[in-house]
Amino acid sequence: MNQRADIVKAIHFLHQKGWAPATSSNYSFRESGQSNFYVSQSGMDKGDFGEAHFLEVDADGNPVNDSRKPSAETLLHCAVYQLFPAVHCVLHTHTVLNTVVSQVFQEKGCLELQDYEILKGFSGIKTHEVSIKIPIFANTQDINALSIELVDFVRKNDPELRAFLIAGHGMYTWGATVADAKRHVEVVEFLLECEYLKLKLKA
Amino acid sequence: MNQRADIVKAIHFLHQKGWAPATSSNYSFRESGQSNFYVSQSGMDKGDFGEAHFLEVDADGNPVNDSRKPSAETLLHCAVYQLFPAVHCVLHTHTVLNTVVSQVFQEKGCLELQDYEILKGFSGIKTHEVSIKIPIFANTQDINALSIELVDFVRKNDPELRAFLIAGHGMYTWGATVADAKRHVEVVEFLLECEYLKLKLKA
Amino acid sequence: MNQRADIVKAIHFLHQKGWAPATSSNYSFRESGQSNFYVSQSGMDKGDFGEAHFLEVDADGNPVNDSRKPSAETLLHCAVYQLFPAVHCVLHTHTVLNTVVSQVFQEKGCLELQDYEILKGFSGIKTHEVSIKIPIFANTQDINALSIELVDFVRKNDPELRAFLIAGHGMYTWGATVADAKRHVEVVEFLLECEYLKLKLKA
Amino acid sequence: MNQRADIVKAIHFLHQKGWAPATSSNYSFRESGQSNFYVSQSGMDKGDFGEAHFLEVDADGNPVNDSRKPSAETLLHCAVYQLFPAVHCVLHTHTVLNTVVSQVFQEKGCLELQDYEILKGFSGIKTHEVSIKIPIFANTQDINALSIELVDFVRKNDPELRAFLIAGHGMYTWGATVADAKRHVEVVEFLLECEYLKLKLKA
Repeated sequence: MNQRADIVKAIHFLHQKGWAPATSSNYSFRESGQSNFYVSQSGMDKGDFGEAHFLEVDADGNPVNDSRKPSAETLLHCAVYQLFPAVHCVLHTHTVLNTVVSQVFQEKGCLELQDYEILKGFSGIKTHEVSIKIPIFANTQDINALSIELVDFVRKNDPELRAFLIAGHGMYTWGATVADAKRHVEVVEFLLECEYLKLKLKA
Repeated sequence: MNQRADIVKAIHFLHQKGWAPATSSNYSFRESGQSNFYVSQSGMDKGDFGEAHFLEVDADGNPVNDSRKPSAETLLHCAVYQLFPAVHCVLHTHTVLNTVVSQVFQEKGCLELQDYEILKGFSGIKTHEVSIKIPIFANTQDINALSIELVDFVRKNDPELRAFLIAGHGMYTWGATVADAKRHVEVVEFLLECEYLKLKLKA
Repeated sequence: MNQRADIVKAIHFLHQKGWAPATSSNYSFRESGQSNFYVSQSGMDKGDFGEAHFLEVDADGNPVNDSRKPSAETLLHCAVYQLFPAVHCVLHTHTVLNTVVSQVFQEKGCLELQDYEILKGFSGIKTHEVSIKIPIFANTQDINALSIELVDFVRKNDPELRAFLIAGHGMYTWGATVADAKRHVEVVEFLLECEYLKLKLKA
Repeated sequence: MNQRADIVKAIHFLHQKGWAPATSSNYSFRESGQSNFYVSQSGMDKGDFGEAHFLEVDADGNPVNDSRKPSAETLLHCAVYQLFPAVHCVLHTHTVLNTVVSQVFQEKGCLELQDYEILKGFSGIKTHEVSIKIPIFANTQDINALSIELVDFVRKNDPELRAFLIAGHGMYTWGATVADAKRHVEVVEFLLECEYLKLKLKA
């Protein structure tokens, strides 16, 4: 297993899909048994992203022996790793559909997904007969506040949280491995597209 | 003719189209004159799928000298091969459009397609002036029951069945060769997209 | 200038766009000063199309020293070359949007395009302030009758015809060179998509 | 830094996205401290565009020691370079969505964008809580008149203008570097798609 090579390959897949436009999106991986992790450098065109564009940060998001700037949203990665010890990869996407759907459903506070076979793409889900709720947080530039809100939400409402949306901003998901996290991105983006297409039929 | 190389090439085409996201979808081929067939291994990212990722199963779907797990939906492949002796390839896709259209039309029980030139892409169809019905089955995790339902449907209602949908899940089609089955996938996915686009104009 | 290499490159571009699914679509080129021309072989997957997959036919569409079957729609190519002596390439596409838009506008008999800058992509058009009418013919399997209808339409109604649609079937356009014909395909498919998107806003 | 190689790479990215169909679109770069600049040759298929397809023009758009024809819209590039001394790259796209959205919003005179995280992709923007107005000019073949209208608009209304639309025609944006200009294209095209998708829900 080579996490660093795997996540770079996954990033190029996400970029090629158009899910990381305009230097947006950020990604991280954590090695087994470590609290430090590796997060993508700020401001890179993801089409040019390579293995050297990760920098090590500690569990609070401070760079370790590195003068480069980590992603502005590193604290959200810290929160996910703190909440879920089994997680080793966090992926964030900026897509047209996660932007629009998160805005449309923001008032409801979450997107509820059920009766889709592809829900089985989430680790541990064995049937389409489940209901998965993806919370939608308001967008803010205060990432510290948002990371506290996230930790609070998970502890109080959904200790098995699988993904979340930030309205008009994007989607975060994660997994025990890079492959799991990448698969979860594909599941959520697929379902956001389904939900949008059904919304239009009702409009 | 090299079925194994042909189907791997077809799988990469389907994956590149976005029709096999999140390790979903499964595929098989049967050699001429055989009852055993080769089905895709469970849980693979189809972008990484290679010739070694098929395993031999018998006509009842049991692995032959192989400890790997065949696709969870192998029994549907068994049913198709049992129903149609001339078939040598079965392809299954999970697409946003087959998910949504199968849900929207589920109450009607089928999708009826007519007056499209591309219907001639189905083997044996020589004119657009036909009506092809694609049945929509309810989704279930009991694949054995679904395969019995499929066999029953074909025998009672449509011995020339060309494809079927499972609501919120995906589409199955097949052909005498890998090329025929791949072409049938393209025909059905094209028509599902047409039907969705026309639905929106009526909405 | 190498027409044969140019048209194969153009075909791969069209196939990669998804505009030639399921072995559909056909293409031809005519060398300077010749009445015979080269038309694509019937039934090929266009992703596998190469220079050897053209066969020579005479001005009436009969194969010249070739036992292969030319495209079923060769007579439409014959009609275009007969009508427009300056044309050296004819391209036909089967797209989801030309299928749907041709069905939606069929009753009107044509699609009228105006006030689009991209209309200047048609050879000889110097301003967006034009109106281009693309007629929509009913689909038929009698290609001979359709080719007569086309010749008749051009002579009576539009001697400068640039493209036509066949309802639920596809689009034909052409040009003095392969590059011109390819550019015309891009113009028409772009405009069909624009028209569909505006139709939805009105729906 | 190699501006010429960078812009060719960016052009291929834009072409591959389908944002430069049918030989449309034009691009330029200006070296540091120069008033002359390099603009794309007229009428090229952007899939075939290479470093040799730029020609030098002076600040008024006249070719310098070159008999080739610069893009018909060179005067708009001249206007942008004159207005914004810090700009070194101007990119123009012809997309289905910028065509349709510019027509739909033309009466309003501009498209107003706010509450999108991706607005931070514009150089100098640090929060989604901004409102960016993209003016929509009427299309015309009199590029000289349009360039005067643009200069006038910027001086009177928006000295920090970041992009503009021409109705039914396309979008222009620019940046201090090729990377900045390319990122701005991605931001605007992303937002035009979001706005279109939300428009449909209201329709």
